[in-house]
Amino acid sequence: MIPNWLLQRAYLTPDRVALSFEQQQWTFQELHDEAMRIARKLYANGLREGTRVALLGPSNAHMMFMIHGCLLGSIEIVMINSRLSEKEIAYQLLDSEAEAIIVEDSLAEKLQTIDRKKLLFSFIASSEEIDFTPINTWKAEQTITIMYTSGTTGFPKGVRQTVGNHTSNALSSVLNLGLSENDVWLCTTPLFHISGFSIIVRSLLYGMGIRLYEKFDAIEAAEEIQKGSVTRMSVVANSLDRILREMEKSEMFAHPNFQTMLAGGGPLPIDYLRRAEKRGIAVLQTYGMTETSSQTATLSADDALRKIGSAGKPLFFNQIKIRDAEKPMQHGEVMIAGPHVTPGYVGRFADRNPLEDGWLPTGDIGYMDHEGYLYIVDRRSDLIISGGENIYPAEIENVLVSHPSVLEAGVCGQEDEKWGSVPIAFLVCKEPIEKEEIEKFCLERLAKFKVPKSFYMVDELPRNASNKLMRRELKHFRKRPL
Amino acid sequence: MIPNWLLQRAYLTPDRVALSFEQQQWTFQELHDEAMRIARKLYANGLREGTRVALLGPSNAHMMFMIHGCLLGSIEIVMINSRLSEKEIAYQLLDSEAEAIIVEDSLAEKLQTIDRKKLLFSFIASSEEIDFTPINTWKAEQTITIMYTSGTTGFPKGVRQTVGNHTSNALSSVLNLGLSENDVWLCTTPLFHISGFSIIVRSLLYGMGIRLYEKFDAIEAAEEIQKGSVTRMSVVANSLDRILREMEKSEMFAHPNFQTMLAGGGPLPIDYLRRAEKRGIAVLQTYGMTETSSQTATLSADDALRKIGSAGKPLFFNQIKIRDAEKPMQHGEVMIAGPHVTPGYVGRFADRNPLEDGWLPTGDIGYMDHEGYLYIVDRRSDLIISGGENIYPAEIENVLVSHPSVLEAGVCGQEDEKWGSVPIAFLVCKEPIEKEEIEKFCLERLAKFKVPKSFYMVDELPRNASNKLMRRELKHFRKRPL
Repeated sequence: MIPNWLLQRAYLTPDRVALSFEQQQWTFQELHDEAMRIARKLYANGLREGTRVALLGPSNAHMMFMIHGCLLGSIEIVMINSRLSEKEIAYQLLDSEAEAIIVEDSLAEKLQTIDRKKLLFSFIASSEEIDFTPINTWKAEQTITIMYTSGTTGFPKGVRQTVGNHTSNALSSVLNLGLSENDVWLCTTPLFHISGFSIIVRSLLYGMGIRLYEKFDAIEAAEEIQKGSVTRMSVVANSLDRILREMEKSEMFAHPNFQTMLAGGGPLPIDYLRRAEKRGIAVLQTYGMTETSSQTATLSADDALRKIGSAGKPLFFNQIKIRDAEKPMQHGEVMIAGPHVTPGYVGRFADRNPLEDGWLPTGDIGYMDHEGYLYIVDRRSDLIISGGENIYPAEIENVLVSHPSVLEAGVCGQEDEKWGSVPIAFLVCKEPIEKEEIEKFCLERLAKFKVPKSFYMVDELPRNASNKLMRRELKHFRKRPL
Repeated sequence: MIPNWLLQRAYLTPDRVALSFEQQQWTFQELHDEAMRIARKLYANGLREGTRVALLGPSNAHMMFMIHGCLLGSIEIVMINSRLSEKEIAYQLLDSEAEAIIVEDSLAEKLQTIDRKKLLFSFIASSEEIDFTPINTWKAEQTITIMYTSGTTGFPKGVRQTVGNHTSNALSSVLNLGLSENDVWLCTTPLFHISGFSIIVRSLLYGMGIRLYEKFDAIEAAEEIQKGSVTRMSVVANSLDRILREMEKSEMFAHPNFQTMLAGGGPLPIDYLRRAEKRGIAVLQTYGMTETSSQTATLSADDALRKIGSAGKPLFFNQIKIRDAEKPMQHGEVMIAGPHVTPGYVGRFADRNPLEDGWLPTGDIGYMDHEGYLYIVDRRSDLIISGGENIYPAEIENVLVSHPSVLEAGVCGQEDEKWGSVPIAFLVCKEPIEKEEIEKFCLERLAKFKVPKSFYMVDELPRNASNKLMRRELKHFRKRPL
């Protein structure tokens, strides 16, 4: 049994600061009271313990209250990525069978054609309240959030994240990072992502404050770090680079209060590490995913320059092995086990067990060195990581081939200075097609960041003997841009 | 599944200091290697995964290796209090059905009449080694240690402490205390007690060093605290007082490195708190027991002077309630729930479920104030706490009435400047008896600290209407000393 996070935290440390956003701040007691008010309004709208509801909003204080209201009421939340297209959202609502979608008013226009109960933030705010007693303790196996991720099939899978998954991840992390009463985590990553959501869980378990920004802003982040008003932060390569540029431009240094930067989404260029070191920033590179409710392995700052390119060692409660590897340095699929690994999916993949013999096959190829440090050499399913967002080529290819003029499609990543990588598409067409048309077609069906930045006409796609698309070959293929 | 603690810790942070004792120190890798050597020797002696073995030794580095050897080999350890009499040890061996008792050579004389396989430390050291692969992960429900505690019946009960109990306790504690990479816990409490053993678990989970002393020494403790070579310490009232006296005498102050003192075994006099504050020592008062693998509630240093006499609030994963209390301030039996609560006993009490509806009744009487702080007003079963050792009157009374001249016996605690409290006995006798004789009789059957410091002859014992002994009345009873 695990205590209802916010209920227990507000009881234990009511007066500690839980959240600050713009010029306002809330203690855990105040956060509890805001969340309780919302939970009572949700209750009045039929949303209560065990209900599954989708949630779409920007990463601001109101969204935070809404998330906490759902958690306090033991309501399962399908966290919707606000960058998705209407069609993608429709798919997730249908697949997850969410009873309703709670949506911040400004985003409601995204849902015009969606045929599901919609509850605007403003509607909930003006609802009556029905008093109820929140569940005191949760079962570890209870699903509390669902996040969609695409994977190899091209169909997004709704990943169940249980109370136990989130809790053990936060605990593993604290054993690695340490904890001080004055810790404040700067959160500039979206709350619908596991990177953002896991900060909420840590905050509740640790009694730690969150400094929340609706959008990442390099200048503001740099200033918080210099002032020492925050002690931790989660970044991806691109945001780290932008913070460092600001700090370099203004000769800023991290305040001694500032402890560590947790960097996800693939290894960092060594140059970034050196620059961070000069600014007094300790960077921990981490390997995590939606299916593991955030970090599985993390490389300590001490090892960063000694083990360039490594994702580090597993956190305390986690296990990593390389499929079929009998000794160090052998390459193979990375397999993960531990209490942080999802028990499975909802919707069309509900029957699929993600584990083989208790281990999660990640699709990533990697190896362990002689000291047991993990190296990822090839991302799962030709995964494209663009500004911290995972993009699965298969999902984009599925959309492209649904266009009447397209026969076959192949998508891969292309290096990009700003985003790390962006998707580009290769098309075999029945008839000539305009770039504008295929772009528009994609925009209606895909989040903008998934829409290929370039389209190329080819006569055929590179395939291996068993006719499998060789996406890694695409990049070097003869190109005729649309 | 929980990773084999030392196996995982030595993998994750092999080079961090795990233990220092006298002039020597060991990293986690070195500790692992020492433990593995012992585990292989134990294996050669038939002690392996799932075997239950008793362990008796002083709290020094060799004992530490022996404990880690057993843990690494997934051997269940019955931790034997080295202050027990031979008869008491015999009872625990019989009751627990331990396959053997591992004993440090100097303590072997304690076991002369004991008819059970004895393995001296020196014998194990000279054994051959059989190579084996330690279990990688444990089940949370797996019993890993057994500690005896007496309780109301007078018959000591072997309390099972599972991997999950110890692990969740260490995790709850870190969320309360915080953690830094430089933490070192000063351990001067016996390792066979949960107060000492829980430091070992924390060390493994946190990657934290232990500074170990075989015996408590106030001068050395004060010096470590002043030097800042340690950051945490566990104490009872008496040891805290002695440390403070040393520091006051030599005008010493705690080094800024020093974080917190965890004080168990009942509330501290306010005078101790004020004196500790003057020396720069933050004292956290805690409420714990063998059945909860250490702390259940802890009072923060900030609250120490505002909530005098309180045991604080539960740690994050724990729940406390007062039986039948409907609102704050109502007195009743303290009930505990959480993943740190024992699933039960071995031996004669194996069939007894310690829980009622998932809650452990402690026998202690207490209340919650309006802010949810726990106060203990009366210790369970007239428990006598003497220098941190729990003494149960019923156990001593059982021994006293087994003497042919004694008809009835009653035992209670008497305030003592050095030990906090000491047991005294009231006897109804068939015939006159000498003090020396009854003392000798007790010494053969009880640990020295349990032997009453005074014996009084009385005509009858104070009993209530249902003939229950009123131990609290004894103190004020007409006395004729032996």
